[in-house]
Amino acid sequence: MKTQRPLILASQSPRRRELLQLCGCTFRVASADVDEEAIAREMLAGHKAGEDFLALVTVVVGRLAEAKAAAAAESLGNAAESVILSSDTVVVLGEKVLGKPRDEAEARYMLRRLAGQEHRVLTGVCIRADGRSEVFASEAAVRFYPADAFMEHLIDHYVETGSPLDKAGAYGIQDEGALLVEAIHGDFYTVMGLPVAETARRLQKYLYA
Amino acid sequence: MKTQRPLILASQSPRRRELLQLCGCTFRVASADVDEEAIAREMLAGHKAGEDFLALVTVVVGRLAEAKAAAAAESLGNAAESVILSSDTVVVLGEKVLGKPRDEAEARYMLRRLAGQEHRVLTGVCIRADGRSEVFASEAAVRFYPADAFMEHLIDHYVETGSPLDKAGAYGIQDEGALLVEAIHGDFYTVMGLPVAETARRLQKYLYA
Repeated sequence: MKTQRPLILASQSPRRRELLQLCGCTFRVASADVDEEAIAREMLAGHKAGEDFLALVTVVVGRLAEAKAAAAAESLGNAAESVILSSDTVVVLGEKVLGKPRDEAEARYMLRRLAGQEHRVLTGVCIRADGRSEVFASEAAVRFYPADAFMEHLIDHYVETGSPLDKAGAYGIQDEGALLVEAIHGDFYTVMGLPVAETARRLQKYLYA
Repeated sequence: MKTQRPLILASQSPRRRELLQLCGCTFRVASADVDEEAIAREMLAGHKAGEDFLALVTVVVGRLAEAKAAAAAESLGNAAESVILSSDTVVVLGEKVLGKPRDEAEARYMLRRLAGQEHRVLTGVCIRADGRSEVFASEAAVRFYPADAFMEHLIDHYVETGSPLDKAGAYGIQDEGALLVEAIHGDFYTVMGLPVAETARRLQKYLYA
């Protein structure tokens, strides 16, 4: 077994930490302070009618992940021997990106909009090593159950747990948000925030170079 | 809020217990001793060439879930006031049902066969109340990454953890088995062993009758 190069996860998300543990590599965690909303807003403002919106969002999540890795690299100072991993997840409904809700009312509003619809979840991932970045994005489709009295009850209850507030699109598919989801098409872990299987594959050549 | 009728989960699986907790109902756990393999073998032996194999397996997982609920009802004696929930999951590759592997060698063999293929996971669910059973089945498609040196490494490592041994098809999508999976189509929780969202919906009328 070759020695593993040091790996840094540029994310404070406990979910991502849990997922990266599945890969079986050792890593430590660093923060990555990036004004995600500002970057996304500016890039999405450039969208022209008729252009492929999902393609643009694919670029955006890649850039966001890259910005996080760069911010972590900078804040860590001399960490040239390390590999930095970062990711960013957004929820897309039609031609609208749903970020984290500002408050409970907005969380309720987002979840009601998602009801009965299929939306996309895009996770951009950046692997930064030796000053260069490899970026990829993974996309999954998620269909919510239609709006009805039970769905309304679930949404109210879910919002009260507080869980939607720190999540893009106001839900986590791995907690009580699971009750809202009828089916997914793609990688479940992309929806959770880190496509572990693809990430593990792409990390190999950096960690065991 | 109406009072919830007592609910019994007829399963010793810690995964199913965890999933049912997402539904937010209170329940206790009971064992359900059923010779699943014998029931499945007998039913599947009746399959005729040209008949829809998946349709037959759909019936089989429903029967298995029903048998578990009936066994739990009997062992509990007088539990007429309770609702009993049970489920059974099988993995289908082509016209072959993959159960739990007998040993590490068979686990390795199963995982290698699944590599590069799409298979189906079927979970049958039974809700038993007042001597009657409601049975439904949920199906999801799972695609494994193609066989290559990394996949071989993952399979070897995964089998060594021992985790595949108590799982149909020799993998759990929620543990290191996640690294083998490229995409799913359907409900992730069907693959894990209990379609929580659909189960929560169907349970309502029994629990709050």
